[in-house]
Amino acid sequence: MATLVYTQFVFLLLFQSSVWGFPVRQTPQESPTCGYKSCHATKPGMLNVHLVPHTHDDVGWLKTVDQYFYGDRNDIQHAGVQYILDSVVDQLLKNPDRRFIYVETAFFYRWWKRQTDDMQNTVKQLVNEGRLEFVNGGWCMSDEATTHYSAVVDQMTMGLRFLNDTFGHCGRPRVAWHIDPFGHAREHASMFAQMGYDGFFFGRLDYQDRSRRMAAREQEMLWRASESLTPPMADLFTGILPNGYNPPEGFCWDQSCDDPPIRDDPDLEDYNVDDVVTRFLSIAHTQALVYKTNHIIMTMGSDFQYENANLWYKNLDKLIHYVNQQQSNGSKVNVLYSTPSCYLQELHRTNLTWPLKGDDFFPYADSAHDFWTGYFTSRPALKRYERISNSYLQTCNQLEVLGGPISRKGPFGAGDSETMKKAMAVAQHHDAVSGTEKQHVANDYARRLANGWAHCQVLVSNTLSSLSGSSAPRVYCEHLNISVCPLTETSKKFSVNVYNPLARPVSWPVRLPVNGTAYSISDANGKAVDSQVVPVSQATAAVRRGRGYAVNELLFQVQAPPLGYSTYSVSLLQNGAPSPQASPLPRAPKAVQNKFLRVTFDPETGLLSSLSNLETQQTVKLSQNFYWYNASDGKNSESIQMSGAYIFRPNTSTPFIISKTAKIETLQNSVVQEVRQWFSPWVSQVVRLYTDSRALELEWTVGPVPIGDDLGKEVISRLDSSINSSGVFYTDSNGREMLQRRKDYRPTWNLRQSEPIAGNYYPINSRAYIKDDKDQLTVVTDRSQGGGSIQDGSLEIMLHRRLLYDDVRGVGEPLNETSDIYPEGLVVRGRLLLSLSPPATAADTHRPLAQEVVLQPLITFTDGELHPNTRLEFSGLQAVLPPAVHLLTVSQWDQDSVLLRLEHQYQASESKEHSQPVSVNLQKLFSTLDVLGVSEMNLSANQWKDEMTRLDWKAESGEKPLPKREGDPSMWEVNLKPMEIRTFLLRVRQR
Amino acid sequence: MATLVYTQFVFLLLFQSSVWGFPVRQTPQESPTCGYKSCHATKPGMLNVHLVPHTHDDVGWLKTVDQYFYGDRNDIQHAGVQYILDSVVDQLLKNPDRRFIYVETAFFYRWWKRQTDDMQNTVKQLVNEGRLEFVNGGWCMSDEATTHYSAVVDQMTMGLRFLNDTFGHCGRPRVAWHIDPFGHAREHASMFAQMGYDGFFFGRLDYQDRSRRMAAREQEMLWRASESLTPPMADLFTGILPNGYNPPEGFCWDQSCDDPPIRDDPDLEDYNVDDVVTRFLSIAHTQALVYKTNHIIMTMGSDFQYENANLWYKNLDKLIHYVNQQQSNGSKVNVLYSTPSCYLQELHRTNLTWPLKGDDFFPYADSAHDFWTGYFTSRPALKRYERISNSYLQTCNQLEVLGGPISRKGPFGAGDSETMKKAMAVAQHHDAVSGTEKQHVANDYARRLANGWAHCQVLVSNTLSSLSGSSAPRVYCEHLNISVCPLTETSKKFSVNVYNPLARPVSWPVRLPVNGTAYSISDANGKAVDSQVVPVSQATAAVRRGRGYAVNELLFQVQAPPLGYSTYSVSLLQNGAPSPQASPLPRAPKAVQNKFLRVTFDPETGLLSSLSNLETQQTVKLSQNFYWYNASDGKNSESIQMSGAYIFRPNTSTPFIISKTAKIETLQNSVVQEVRQWFSPWVSQVVRLYTDSRALELEWTVGPVPIGDDLGKEVISRLDSSINSSGVFYTDSNGREMLQRRKDYRPTWNLRQSEPIAGNYYPINSRAYIKDDKDQLTVVTDRSQGGGSIQDGSLEIMLHRRLLYDDVRGVGEPLNETSDIYPEGLVVRGRLLLSLSPPATAADTHRPLAQEVVLQPLITFTDGELHPNTRLEFSGLQAVLPPAVHLLTVSQWDQDSVLLRLEHQYQASESKEHSQPVSVNLQKLFSTLDVLGVSEMNLSANQWKDEMTRLDWKAESGEKPLPKREGDPSMWEVNLKPMEIRTFLLRVRQR
Repeated sequence: MATLVYTQFVFLLLFQSSVWGFPVRQTPQESPTCGYKSCHATKPGMLNVHLVPHTHDDVGWLKTVDQYFYGDRNDIQHAGVQYILDSVVDQLLKNPDRRFIYVETAFFYRWWKRQTDDMQNTVKQLVNEGRLEFVNGGWCMSDEATTHYSAVVDQMTMGLRFLNDTFGHCGRPRVAWHIDPFGHAREHASMFAQMGYDGFFFGRLDYQDRSRRMAAREQEMLWRASESLTPPMADLFTGILPNGYNPPEGFCWDQSCDDPPIRDDPDLEDYNVDDVVTRFLSIAHTQALVYKTNHIIMTMGSDFQYENANLWYKNLDKLIHYVNQQQSNGSKVNVLYSTPSCYLQELHRTNLTWPLKGDDFFPYADSAHDFWTGYFTSRPALKRYERISNSYLQTCNQLEVLGGPISRKGPFGAGDSETMKKAMAVAQHHDAVSGTEKQHVANDYARRLANGWAHCQVLVSNTLSSLSGSSAPRVYCEHLNISVCPLTETSKKFSVNVYNPLARPVSWPVRLPVNGTAYSISDANGKAVDSQVVPVSQATAAVRRGRGYAVNELLFQVQAPPLGYSTYSVSLLQNGAPSPQASPLPRAPKAVQNKFLRVTFDPETGLLSSLSNLETQQTVKLSQNFYWYNASDGKNSESIQMSGAYIFRPNTSTPFIISKTAKIETLQNSVVQEVRQWFSPWVSQVVRLYTDSRALELEWTVGPVPIGDDLGKEVISRLDSSINSSGVFYTDSNGREMLQRRKDYRPTWNLRQSEPIAGNYYPINSRAYIKDDKDQLTVVTDRSQGGGSIQDGSLEIMLHRRLLYDDVRGVGEPLNETSDIYPEGLVVRGRLLLSLSPPATAADTHRPLAQEVVLQPLITFTDGELHPNTRLEFSGLQAVLPPAVHLLTVSQWDQDSVLLRLEHQYQASESKEHSQPVSVNLQKLFSTLDVLGVSEMNLSANQWKDEMTRLDWKAESGEKPLPKREGDPSMWEVNLKPMEIRTFLLRVRQR
Repeated sequence: MATLVYTQFVFLLLFQSSVWGFPVRQTPQESPTCGYKSCHATKPGMLNVHLVPHTHDDVGWLKTVDQYFYGDRNDIQHAGVQYILDSVVDQLLKNPDRRFIYVETAFFYRWWKRQTDDMQNTVKQLVNEGRLEFVNGGWCMSDEATTHYSAVVDQMTMGLRFLNDTFGHCGRPRVAWHIDPFGHAREHASMFAQMGYDGFFFGRLDYQDRSRRMAAREQEMLWRASESLTPPMADLFTGILPNGYNPPEGFCWDQSCDDPPIRDDPDLEDYNVDDVVTRFLSIAHTQALVYKTNHIIMTMGSDFQYENANLWYKNLDKLIHYVNQQQSNGSKVNVLYSTPSCYLQELHRTNLTWPLKGDDFFPYADSAHDFWTGYFTSRPALKRYERISNSYLQTCNQLEVLGGPISRKGPFGAGDSETMKKAMAVAQHHDAVSGTEKQHVANDYARRLANGWAHCQVLVSNTLSSLSGSSAPRVYCEHLNISVCPLTETSKKFSVNVYNPLARPVSWPVRLPVNGTAYSISDANGKAVDSQVVPVSQATAAVRRGRGYAVNELLFQVQAPPLGYSTYSVSLLQNGAPSPQASPLPRAPKAVQNKFLRVTFDPETGLLSSLSNLETQQTVKLSQNFYWYNASDGKNSESIQMSGAYIFRPNTSTPFIISKTAKIETLQNSVVQEVRQWFSPWVSQVVRLYTDSRALELEWTVGPVPIGDDLGKEVISRLDSSINSSGVFYTDSNGREMLQRRKDYRPTWNLRQSEPIAGNYYPINSRAYIKDDKDQLTVVTDRSQGGGSIQDGSLEIMLHRRLLYDDVRGVGEPLNETSDIYPEGLVVRGRLLLSLSPPATAADTHRPLAQEVVLQPLITFTDGELHPNTRLEFSGLQAVLPPAVHLLTVSQWDQDSVLLRLEHQYQASESKEHSQPVSVNLQKLFSTLDVLGVSEMNLSANQWKDEMTRLDWKAESGEKPLPKREGDPSMWEVNLKPMEIRTFLLRVRQR
């Protein structure tokens, strides 16, 4: 024990050294001026106007992130971030009163690494004096509707770590700042709270919501962002900015604006100081009417502004001078350079109580017919690629830890997870995975992810080679979803490695494109595995476009241990066509079923007709079909708003059916039962039930969406059930907690519904469900999508959108995706996983199910016979973790340290069995690593947990909760309560 | 004598003190680095590419000069000069290698006076080190086609003086820089040579001229810019810039450009250094093919660029780095930051000979149908107002000197000439008097002139009060040209003061609007003066628009002494209508004549039919009529070019006649004979012969030009004579020397004429003539106009233009002038003065005639009886100057010093009588001032003449002239040779 204590002591000492890049422990003498201490004084008896100079730098939108950084392609949009930072630093140096905030670390990092030591020291000085302040500080400003919390936590961690490593605690943002995302997720607020932010500001919310809040002076509030976490763990002070994130009208002095500068030379024409002061005072007084305190904030900046910061600052200096000069004439307005944290500090000092907010800010409408609910689905292929890339990245991270240094430099060369981390981080941007960027930018995000994955593949190969003892070349088949894999199509003998990134074992169906008729398969123990060879479906053959020629698919079920792999050997037994009985039959079955589920079909239409859970003996009527909404072309008496990348606006509230009946083929064998449905040349589906699955898979293939009729189309899959859902359905927030959605209703204001469909759409990141007292039908999605429940018992999910008009929100392109391979329009394939359960136990199914979709096994191949010494099975864990525990992060932090996040993946009261505290022993976690030390951090890993002291805020309603923290059983044995994520930095040694 | 020498000694000492704002005498130790010494080294064996960072800042164009300065109205054009200078200074400080040139002192001055002492010292340091270099340095970059040399010399003097006062000799530009004016006048080159410039660069010349010069490598030359001045007095090395004044294609890194920045971070996408270097080397090599030396210049900048200089410099730094890096790979290209003077120095060091240029660069065409000959006439009212304002300013300057300190602060308050000087200086800009600015900017120029004149009026009133001993309020009537003057219209007794700014006495016809029938007039000696009262013409009544109600005009002839005034007393004798015999008769006379001229009319048409000089007994057939060219609307098979503010392009080469006959009235009395011609409701003319005039006056009134037929119109007055002009006519250059113009011909290249009318138009600033062996018909104009001689014996002058289309050269407005008073279109009135002489003596008439039109007497009024002690006559000169001598400048320089310019106003060989050297005694010049000291300066008064050493250049052809300077008879007695201007700084004391 003595040794242990000593070890920990050394470890903590090391962590305090800034050389290591860990958060520096804060001591009073270290921070004389930055943070709240650096704020300008305000004047108590006056209206204090906080001017916040800022730039909003999209990490890709109309241009790629690197084009934005360099100022390339200014023909598309004038924007060059390198120049913004150059200019702002110059201008800050000219007047110590000036302030600037910077937000997007993806850009700041690019800039920083090109600066001289002198410039870096200058910037450090500015940061240390609070003149340059980072807010938000993630790699990007993430989208909130289409991101998964796992990737958001990662990108925030990366951005904040860079700031911490570079600037120490003066670089730690105090304020979260999501001024542009198109609606706000409760889970984001919860994460921000757990990351230690003192407050949060945003710019966009429903126009009706804003009106009410302005009248009631409720634009500033306390957001209680979790129903599971004990307040104030997920409480976040939240403020709505007065003017989006723009300056007040007439006061934009950027080079991109045309507002008149302050002309204060009396010798020249058009002296306008009096006019400027008068207009400013009027705006300030008006703004003060809709906020609670004698402090108001004005955002003096906008998209890519401050490229020539002199224009802004020169005029702001004058504005402050001339407006404050009026105080000697009795004016009670005091203007000052400020930052969001300085403004926040003043709000906090008022000691007021604030209204409590419990739901989220979706959907966002900026006008009666302008609901930003289209982007929930826009670019479904990119959304899926981003989601699967997260799975790749987590696998890559894990294998970097498990492989040790050889993972980064091994037999297959130099690999890294960094490239993928950055690619995933930029993909979280609110114009990236959101699908609201230009086509060429979407291509750039995809290219970055592909490049990231290429770097990871080397790392994965190195580690698997090291763990297995086999240096056989490893083959990656990224097109298995369309049955393309050159190796399996041609090889007579190959092995299949299945790596499972979850903390519990998984069983997983594998489908490999082959040209043989029969194969023998053995598992890691040499045991034969049941397999089937079936013909490739016509739907799949149609979308391959010359990328593969497999005629058959080899189907079998694999198992893999937690945080580990299992290897299967496959040998060709027989060539030629599959046996006739392997081929599908051209008719609908009465039913398909396994031991868990039974599904029936309407023999007339070929559509689903019911779903039964055989374990719980419950059955619901359930039909499913595909429809499309006709996208508004703006030729409409009510509004000229078109459907576009952002906005969903159907022309009519009743969608058009694609086909009332489906052409059917049925395939049934020992591994899988499939009903293949053809609705039209561009819509097909496979209803699939694997032998040991509790979920019914609906694999949809949509596209190319035809537009020859000049009608934009928004394609949905709609489930209509007998469930009495009473106008209510449920969606997840960023893949974590569930939120109730009620038709034509908002929890915090009296909604005047103006778009019966689009106004009832919500983001679905991982799942949605409808329920009544008895039955809960849950749909797990494989990517973020938009959806709604327009009729009781019905749940619709938008799958694909192809539009002919731009929706005038800036992107300047209709969402009309084509590619070299699909010049006539993108074909998209995806899966919905359905489960039926009693509401009380539904989470027991959908939590692990969704987890398996998010972090899917990685399947890799080696050709030929494996060396006999090859280790065919491996687990990085000493033991399976409890079912409630999710291994959110296992990632190399520094040479000897690993970042670990453990998550309780159930909500409070969600599951009788699982919604209980659970504990994990950190020392007994890994099978190949000794954990020598541990230190807990905040969620974003930029602060020691014991140093995370946030400003406390009082809610208008409700008791102020006592923050009580139950101790862990021991230093190594840590407790997790429902929905809790705990973040640890472990010092480790490879065994 | 001893006293005199002493005085001069003190004077010169004083002049050396920089406190006084005179040019500091240069000593070697004072200029360690600026000027040529501050240039970067070049590499002898390489192609040296001189990158010249620059901005071109129009002193008004689409926005007013102050809007440009502040960056106001960026909705019209993004441009803010205050920010340009802020930014450039910042960026120069970042890297001592960087260079910048600044050109327009009107802007620099505005900026400078708002800077702190610290910033001023910083800028001085940059100037002293040659990092910031002034080129050209006038208040503006003057237009060359429509300006008068008098105003150009003034504006250059003002700009250069500011630089001298502020920066000493390091602020003295070495290079003239007219990169934008639309063609180049020989007189400008002559002036620049006399101002001490070592070289001159411009950007625009005829496209055919450029082609030939490129092929022949003759883009750099020696311009011998005077036929009278002894070389090299008016020799100017002249270079044509390679790309107008823009950077090479693909290398514009201003915020206003979209060229790709240098992306040199290998970690980011789209690394393009290799591509940039390759493209640059290719451009450099191609450019070197059309220049003579291994030095080439690239202008890295353009209109209002460098507002964010970081963009330019950051990329230029990289360009220089990466291109020169190739030298280690064998590249023979060396790039460097440079300035025009550093480039010039390298050219000079080559010691090559250069082709000689003798004519000018008019007209300018940038394509076959795109002749920039419209602006010679555009905005005729502004052009006249500018010209008359020059006359006002010279009078104001003279009266400031003659009045002494009381002129600036006297009984009528504070007056100054500074305001008018600045207004006139900005009006010389190449989008000001040129008429190529937007309407609101034209209005601003006019407003500035009006304001300048208002300030001058106070000064003039103070001085005249002081000189005359009468403090009676002085009334100014600025609308006498349309017979409006409230005082004379109502007063029964008033006096008329006629101030003559010329150095010789003048006789001048006065026409005053009155309502009486008969007046008695007495001159300064009490002698009665013959006068006539005639009815106001219908043409005049039609254009007054409620601004006056005089029914009659009082006509009489006045005399005024040199640089002095004479006062006439007017008393009403009789009210009521004029006697019937005073009224015009409704018919054409057979002839009108005085003792000098006889004019006959065609009784059928009412048009002129002949002109005779009765003294020389010569007669020519002469008819005159008005026509209009139909402005091209661009709907044309040959070219889509429209006529516009810049470009004149008639649809057909034959103009449309307005009327073949004129309706006629004839008025004949003892003072004047007038034939009033009506051609249409919008064109009329008075053919007028004053009793003692040697010129026939054609007072034309044109407008509102009708456009109801949707045809743009360009109205000309055409004189058709019997003179056998053989395709040749003559025009003046900026009001000084005459140039021969030959139809469809250019002296230096083989012209392919593509526009038979527009391509034969030339600027007429003060006069034009046609001649044959016997007869010379000279037309003196009252403003700058365009004109041509399309047929032998014919001379046409464009008077007014009203157009319906923009000509796509940037101004973005059709030239379609209206005003509050003339909402249906501007009415313009002006005068052509015709003289007929033998060619050998024609100058004896047209030189003084043009002078009288340029510097016209100022007529002011006082109401009532004058005090008996009033001094009714005054001359500031001790004696009339010789007829060849023109008093170009008499202007207060500093408290005790006066700037004096004496000009020989005849060309060599132009006049047997006057083209002779002449001398003037400076001590005997002024009647009220003692001249205590004298020092000669260069033409622009920013250098002592004895320090003006210019680079000498060798011409390819012709002997290199020996610069010989004949000494003056004495220090006080100075010689003037034909066309010579000598500039002196006099130390004076009021007597």
